[in-house]
Amino acid sequence: MIEYRNLRIALLGAGSVGAQVASLLLEHGAELSERVGAGLELVGVAVRDLDAPRSAEIPPHLLTTDARSLILGADIVIELMGGLEPAREYLELALNSGADVITANKALLATYGPELFEIAEQVGAQLYYEAAVGGAIPIIRPLRDSLAGDRVLRILGIVNGTTNYILDRMDTEGDSLEEVLADAQRLGYAEADPTADVEGYDAAQKAAILASLAFHTTVPLEAVYREGILAITTEQVAAARKAGFVVKLLAVCERVVDPESGVEGVSARVHPALVPIDHPLAAVHGANNAVFLEAEAAGSLMFYGAGAGGMQTASAVLGDVVSAARRHVIGGPGVAESTQANLPVLPISSVRTRYRITLEVADKPGVLAAIATLFAEHGVSVEAVQQDARPDGASPTATLVIGTHEATEAALAATVSALESTDVVSAVSSVLRVEGL
Amino acid sequence: MIEYRNLRIALLGAGSVGAQVASLLLEHGAELSERVGAGLELVGVAVRDLDAPRSAEIPPHLLTTDARSLILGADIVIELMGGLEPAREYLELALNSGADVITANKALLATYGPELFEIAEQVGAQLYYEAAVGGAIPIIRPLRDSLAGDRVLRILGIVNGTTNYILDRMDTEGDSLEEVLADAQRLGYAEADPTADVEGYDAAQKAAILASLAFHTTVPLEAVYREGILAITTEQVAAARKAGFVVKLLAVCERVVDPESGVEGVSARVHPALVPIDHPLAAVHGANNAVFLEAEAAGSLMFYGAGAGGMQTASAVLGDVVSAARRHVIGGPGVAESTQANLPVLPISSVRTRYRITLEVADKPGVLAAIATLFAEHGVSVEAVQQDARPDGASPTATLVIGTHEATEAALAATVSALESTDVVSAVSSVLRVEGL
Repeated sequence: MIEYRNLRIALLGAGSVGAQVASLLLEHGAELSERVGAGLELVGVAVRDLDAPRSAEIPPHLLTTDARSLILGADIVIELMGGLEPAREYLELALNSGADVITANKALLATYGPELFEIAEQVGAQLYYEAAVGGAIPIIRPLRDSLAGDRVLRILGIVNGTTNYILDRMDTEGDSLEEVLADAQRLGYAEADPTADVEGYDAAQKAAILASLAFHTTVPLEAVYREGILAITTEQVAAARKAGFVVKLLAVCERVVDPESGVEGVSARVHPALVPIDHPLAAVHGANNAVFLEAEAAGSLMFYGAGAGGMQTASAVLGDVVSAARRHVIGGPGVAESTQANLPVLPISSVRTRYRITLEVADKPGVLAAIATLFAEHGVSVEAVQQDARPDGASPTATLVIGTHEATEAALAATVSALESTDVVSAVSSVLRVEGL
Repeated sequence: MIEYRNLRIALLGAGSVGAQVASLLLEHGAELSERVGAGLELVGVAVRDLDAPRSAEIPPHLLTTDARSLILGADIVIELMGGLEPAREYLELALNSGADVITANKALLATYGPELFEIAEQVGAQLYYEAAVGGAIPIIRPLRDSLAGDRVLRILGIVNGTTNYILDRMDTEGDSLEEVLADAQRLGYAEADPTADVEGYDAAQKAAILASLAFHTTVPLEAVYREGILAITTEQVAAARKAGFVVKLLAVCERVVDPESGVEGVSARVHPALVPIDHPLAAVHGANNAVFLEAEAAGSLMFYGAGAGGMQTASAVLGDVVSAARRHVIGGPGVAESTQANLPVLPISSVRTRYRITLEVADKPGVLAAIATLFAEHGVSVEAVQQDARPDGASPTATLVIGTHEATEAALAATVSALESTDVVSAVSSVLRVEGL
């Protein structure tokens, strides 16, 4: 039963997600209104160009280029423009005018999140962003609310669909990264400029958001260590598979203790990693996303689904619309972000993990002993060594794969540097972190 | 920063979950208080017997047998007693006194949910129950909030850890149900009286809760079709595996259209089902739980984790404590349950699904034709037939496995009844539904 005034919804942006949100709001508005107990009225869609082609039909009278006037007349503002400016300016305007704000803009949140949350708290408005990480997969509310009474220890996330699609194709079809990337661009899974995805920038933004939320700590984007997937070769992926691993681009957020100072803090990093094939994350195929999480009391949890796509992201945005509308009907201010812990954010050198290192070495007696000594000198403990004999037997070099126990990034970096300068090693061909063991 | 009065928390029940919640509240209370911005004070634990042994230490001065006085002095009441009475009476008392209420009591919610939600709405309090389904796996908030803007089409849930443990062991070890059940009882995975689990009552309660939430419709427990796992044999499980399926006890909640009347409604059912081995639910091992969900815009999602256990359930309860406390700090009434859709709840005869039927038949010419005719007469379309020849070749009977296309329960029941009374069939040895294809 509807017993409340109509809530005025303004939409900023009509790209693939925006057009889908507009279309679902117009189509299912009555059903959602019943669900909320208040009419939901899409009062306008701000766009840059009134005549640009859209992926879904929007009634022309709703389109406007005057975003500011639209915002100032709205109860709920949905920002789907992307980019930092003028998105930031518009969201500040919306919050300061008392509107609740919904955004899927991970770059904005990772960069200006603290400022925006601060404004929201001051005016008693709420900022919703379920769509910013994992598309339609509910991640934000589970972390923010369901796990709020627990201590999250670690998150391993596949949070970028494009790179997962690429790595999965390299693994299952044996294609090269260049081939798959070209296909992905043709199919619309990758942008014409794929930098944000393949260099890990998109995943790093999501890692900053997840780590901030999970650890009740402001984790700035600059503090997220980042490596992309461009250096990953088909040979590495095949060798990993043979050894029982899958290569995934992971966002790893965890509580860490700095080995030097003993300081307890948190760390967030994005890089390709080896995941054991029997780990649930190894079964995340195609452009899907998944977040695997370990908490003190809850144990291991996984959330899985389609990570992106206009429809999926629109689902998350509309869930936020319903939450915002329910809050309007009830009244009272929004729930502020909890950053009371504000733990130190530690650099990747504080992180301890396992590694698999592939070396080309001289195939002669004494080499293994020399290399083992070198690892020991740097405090890195070797767990397993595997030597691939050359098929022709005539080659003067052999391939050595060394798996380590947990070691710090700093110790590992020093070891790799020493390996590179020793005579018996002709090349360090691959260094990959192992996660999820 | 704490800027609010202490919130008084009353705990009813100190069984395995209750004792764990008390212990975590006492241990992490300061951290949670900081997170909320208000002190969280456990003011008492109501028990039946002050001297009963507990799984975790509770300071004796907190224990009381006077639940009513404890409730009337509390801001937040956590009910972990289980059972219908006096749990219902105490929760009504708590809600009517204006306290927020947290419960993990699925039997209570499935039976008296609508009445309790109605009281909560009238007094502006909130009833939290994240722990009632799936232990620590966040299911309630994703359904209630994150997916509130979408249309959930179907839920396939493994929501009972005991039966999943039993079926998984039968599948992976080839043990009999009786053997595994005895082991499970010894290990504490199954109760001394395992009826609630193995007969599907526990799963049916959870199905009623999930269906109500997903479809914004009151789905009473009596409307949930229920079959347990006691009739499942090791032979059935082995034959299913050979055919590419795993047997799971599923809670299936879906939108259905009654084939006779054309009425659109919802259905909830619990029964053993064949799940294809490449479906994500097939990989849910041991006592774990998982909820696989299809929504119109979000597509397929899965939530996975440990389903039960004192610690895991305590994690979900404490998440609710933080939510309730944040709401107290903010002020304003709670969000009412959304049952505005109130779709018709249809009986299982309206459901359409696929089946695999195993028959013992006379091994002579014309039998297959006779059986195929019988299926056709009842409007059930056969998708595949497979005949197992007897190893000795001398037996007068053969085993026939028939896979059907989608058919209604009513048509299938009529077919099975006809099969049982025809001469050429000596036994209908197994009828299993197939889900997740």
